[in-house]
Amino acid sequence: MPLRTALTELLDLRHPVVSAPMGGVAGGALAAAVSNAGGLGLVGSGDRAWLERELAIVADTARAAWGIGFLSWAVDDETVQWALAEYQPRAVMLSFGDPAPFAESVRAAGAVLMVQVTDHDAARRAVQVGADVIVAQGGEAGGHGAGRSTLTLVPAVADLVHPTPVLAAGGIADGRGLAAAVTLGAAGAMIGTRFEATTEAVLTPEEGRAIVAARGDDTSRNRVFDIARRSAWPAKYTARMLRNPFFDRWQDREDVLRDDFAAQDVYLDALRRADPTALPVWAGEGVDLITAIEPAAEVLARIAAEADAALARAARRHIDEL
Amino acid sequence: MPLRTALTELLDLRHPVVSAPMGGVAGGALAAAVSNAGGLGLVGSGDRAWLERELAIVADTARAAWGIGFLSWAVDDETVQWALAEYQPRAVMLSFGDPAPFAESVRAAGAVLMVQVTDHDAARRAVQVGADVIVAQGGEAGGHGAGRSTLTLVPAVADLVHPTPVLAAGGIADGRGLAAAVTLGAAGAMIGTRFEATTEAVLTPEEGRAIVAARGDDTSRNRVFDIARRSAWPAKYTARMLRNPFFDRWQDREDVLRDDFAAQDVYLDALRRADPTALPVWAGEGVDLITAIEPAAEVLARIAAEADAALARAARRHIDEL
Repeated sequence: MPLRTALTELLDLRHPVVSAPMGGVAGGALAAAVSNAGGLGLVGSGDRAWLERELAIVADTARAAWGIGFLSWAVDDETVQWALAEYQPRAVMLSFGDPAPFAESVRAAGAVLMVQVTDHDAARRAVQVGADVIVAQGGEAGGHGAGRSTLTLVPAVADLVHPTPVLAAGGIADGRGLAAAVTLGAAGAMIGTRFEATTEAVLTPEEGRAIVAARGDDTSRNRVFDIARRSAWPAKYTARMLRNPFFDRWQDREDVLRDDFAAQDVYLDALRRADPTALPVWAGEGVDLITAIEPAAEVLARIAAEADAALARAARRHIDEL
Repeated sequence: MPLRTALTELLDLRHPVVSAPMGGVAGGALAAAVSNAGGLGLVGSGDRAWLERELAIVADTARAAWGIGFLSWAVDDETVQWALAEYQPRAVMLSFGDPAPFAESVRAAGAVLMVQVTDHDAARRAVQVGADVIVAQGGEAGGHGAGRSTLTLVPAVADLVHPTPVLAAGGIADGRGLAAAVTLGAAGAMIGTRFEATTEAVLTPEEGRAIVAARGDDTSRNRVFDIARRSAWPAKYTARMLRNPFFDRWQDREDVLRDDFAAQDVYLDALRRADPTALPVWAGEGVDLITAIEPAAEVLARIAAEADAALARAARRHIDEL
């Protein structure tokens, strides 16, 4: 019996699961695979060439609702309007920054407006701009995010924005996590790293092997790599990734790295060579639960079945089951 | 219908809830109130005078199982043996450090051995020393802890130590959190900050008001206060507290503070004067959900009722309830 929530009703989904719009990783093939399997697949943002290529793939192959995720601090309204007009996504998610400049374009196109938040103030702002769905992202997430944890952020945001549906994001990689999200009051989960480890994600075999091998204890949330690559990401958003030798060398010395242009050049050169001792592999704390690269449809079906089982097991604890 | 788990069976509890042994805050009155209301109350550690006073209170007034929490890095086996012999706690929890030197004393006294862990390696060690219950503590917790989050640590530890019962600790302050813990595979929850905000906790009215007023976004996990007070706490354990002006002055400058003895003296003097701009108030990310100082029995009864409701609500989502 599939889980029914405000999210599944709003977007006519079989499962209350959204794949995160991981930049450079979540292309059209992954989004289409998730959507065709009954979740909502989101394409991650990138430059115009990436968007043209990946949005054409998902628009051609998705047979159900799919969407796009944009970075509010980086995108411009012309790009948002172009993507909406050209590819007609059913949903658009705005993350990391003020969603206000783009909210009207999303609404005018009739798309579902999803806004991802990492604290109270952003949640309040999301309500003000008329978000249809608010994604509360905890620091467990892979890639960019902030410090609050999913377990405490989700119920606090749910109380704050009621009755707007809230999704839990960050640290969810199996059905126990999805079931916990729903139990906390969420209408579903946005899942990143678990869908990063799929055959449809844009990922090298080396990156896939690193994710499968890693434990949550091996991840770190930091700014080392954004500083080293002179990224324009706002400083309030750190990024979680697998620790590697370059990180170990610079952790707790971000201020030094900021002024060490020679070290930054070494890093940029290592990036060009795809040197695994320096290349960041974005991954969330949930990597403990990832043991194989699998097709996204299998991952989604298993998560849904596990969530059913976890909720049934918890419910039976009321009637003296041990 | 109360929740039944391996924890409630093991200790004959009405509710799968343990109050955290918060140092200086969880005295005999709080532990007894929680135990008498159907949970497991733990007395926090302190010097011998604190233990004699607080253990006498709980031993005199508790009418059900109660316990003590010791810091493995700080306690000695003679103290553990004395407390076991003198007060006969039903359970002893060892946290933060190697439990091995004390495990045999706890077992020999017939008490339930609980071991709190913050990562994989510690979880494996807890199994080796024969823990009866393993508490997986996430970084959301108030006071000392580490970086892993409860949402990802609990299922990973549960998989690792199966079939040993696991409790979730960190960030749980209402029944939705308890229900999520059980859904993740835990046998219950250890709850700190929510029991800190009770009439039985050892807390000043100012500290109580600060906790009630605070939001999770106002907390920070850091070493500023341990450095300022020249504490012997191992560096791998940071502490979560409400931000205050002293913290704002020294955050991200822990290395400078370590060598600034004048600043440390200012801090120690402020502590003696109970200066609220410097005094640390230990609190977890779950403070969003705390809106009043209440008797512990009321808090526990409400958490249990809310957990029942949250699990029933989640289970009904299978049968087309919206």
